[in-house]
Amino acid sequence: MPERIVIALGGNALQSKDSGATAEAQLQVVKRTCEHIAEISQRGYEMAIVHGNGPQVGRILLASETARDVVPVMPFDVCGAMSQGYIGYHIQQALKYALNTRNRNYPVVSLTTQVVVDRNDPAFKTPTKPIGAFCTEEEARKLELEKGYTMREDAGRGWRRAVASPLPRRIVEIGAVRLLWDHAIVITCGGGGVPVVENEDGTLEGVAAVIDKDFAAELLAEEVNADALLILTEVEKVAIRFGQPDQEDLSRLSLAEAAKYVREGQFGVGSMLPKVEAAMKFVRANPGKKAIITSLDKALDALDGKTGTVITFA
Amino acid sequence: MPERIVIALGGNALQSKDSGATAEAQLQVVKRTCEHIAEISQRGYEMAIVHGNGPQVGRILLASETARDVVPVMPFDVCGAMSQGYIGYHIQQALKYALNTRNRNYPVVSLTTQVVVDRNDPAFKTPTKPIGAFCTEEEARKLELEKGYTMREDAGRGWRRAVASPLPRRIVEIGAVRLLWDHAIVITCGGGGVPVVENEDGTLEGVAAVIDKDFAAELLAEEVNADALLILTEVEKVAIRFGQPDQEDLSRLSLAEAAKYVREGQFGVGSMLPKVEAAMKFVRANPGKKAIITSLDKALDALDGKTGTVITFA
Repeated sequence: MPERIVIALGGNALQSKDSGATAEAQLQVVKRTCEHIAEISQRGYEMAIVHGNGPQVGRILLASETARDVVPVMPFDVCGAMSQGYIGYHIQQALKYALNTRNRNYPVVSLTTQVVVDRNDPAFKTPTKPIGAFCTEEEARKLELEKGYTMREDAGRGWRRAVASPLPRRIVEIGAVRLLWDHAIVITCGGGGVPVVENEDGTLEGVAAVIDKDFAAELLAEEVNADALLILTEVEKVAIRFGQPDQEDLSRLSLAEAAKYVREGQFGVGSMLPKVEAAMKFVRANPGKKAIITSLDKALDALDGKTGTVITFA
Repeated sequence: MPERIVIALGGNALQSKDSGATAEAQLQVVKRTCEHIAEISQRGYEMAIVHGNGPQVGRILLASETARDVVPVMPFDVCGAMSQGYIGYHIQQALKYALNTRNRNYPVVSLTTQVVVDRNDPAFKTPTKPIGAFCTEEEARKLELEKGYTMREDAGRGWRRAVASPLPRRIVEIGAVRLLWDHAIVITCGGGGVPVVENEDGTLEGVAAVIDKDFAAELLAEEVNADALLILTEVEKVAIRFGQPDQEDLSRLSLAEAAKYVREGQFGVGSMLPKVEAAMKFVRANPGKKAIITSLDKALDALDGKTGTVITFA
């Protein structure tokens, strides 16, 4: 049996700080990313890929809001679905090529994916994720009244809408992911998935929210019974006392150690913390399995046990 | 063996003239559409769905061009992939619900789909499909020089970019469609597919073009060995002398009759003609099979042989 992994791709797998925000620049970065993923596939791993979408969905919404006098503004859930099409297209195009050059004729497919969140998730009480364009305080108050948005002042740069970041509860298209898993590389839960709530009559309804893509990848890894959750980010190893003179890179991390460091506030909120928490959730649910946090270019070495931070139950 | 059909959905399945261009209005129309599709599924047909994307991709591009000073403009192939995410999301959400209310727990999934076109397709010599925003003649000349666009004067309303409508040659993700076909309703080749050309080194590259969705559905029907191609549009039957006092609705149409009417110019270019041509192509390739052209609300009756226009080889 080949080992099955779910790979969560960080923002740096799609976009570099230097090359800018165009689709052409994204495709160049994605091509490099896909060389690494193809190497992992070449080694015999079966995999699904979950990617982030923060900057992309932000730009889609911003373009839509900027053009509001010309074209109706797209709701945020639709912007999320659009970003899945955009990013999925680039990954499947680039990954297919990277596989072909390795004589590996293997299907790559990206699925538009809805992820159910709980309407009563406490996250909805305190929206934290800023989205869309900046506006004045007066405009912000108007949006609060007219649309019921939560608006927040953003670091002196103006006012922006804030949406919740609820936990993913269920992947609507999981049946299709399972059908494809053994025969294709599946790109799914892009941007954490299009967030939907379940109404009493069973209808799903899109909501304005941002699901953390590492938590979505974790849920996916549980649902497909993956052997490992591989979270790729900008650093080779998780560190404590990060950025300080006595920074310590961690090669192994048990659940108990991880919990201790989380309590100590060792990991950046909104950066390393959700990754460590997703990794912890996976090994808590699967005590015999492992999660790995490392960088894209060290991914294969990390799978070989040579680097990265391996999170295990004990 | 259940009968396998490929359904091509016309623009009226996604959007009504009255209710406007918002995402919310589209979702309402899609919900009604999916009731019909769920009925067909309930009857035991296996199916894939191909949808159009003309107005949607037009608005995505227009929003992107309007916001060009704020966010980089998206290339047209990326706009197509985004429209697949947008429309696929709505269909899979609405169709899943329509199936659930019929106690039919069946996966529905939409795939980002690339379709290869031939760089030497004669269509590239005479771009016919207007896309994007209107501009002045001066701006048009500038775009021709700077970007190599083909710009055309559009019925006195200003100048617009025109792109080619080449024939679909190969569905890149056909492997995944085949894997899913027996176990899910697959939404694929949306908007005719994201058009890509194949470079000599094997890379695929997105191009600015519009693939006719009826021709893409026809190719898909051949590739999955479908029993029937069902093209849904606004009218119950194909007609000759359409709109004239002696209009004649056609219940059956052989390849020879269809070819004769095409030569006579009986079918509207850009409306009924490509549908009839796609139907002809399918039965020419599969002489024992049939294509049906009818309206969405008559689709089930047409499959039962009660209405619609059935196109057969002889």
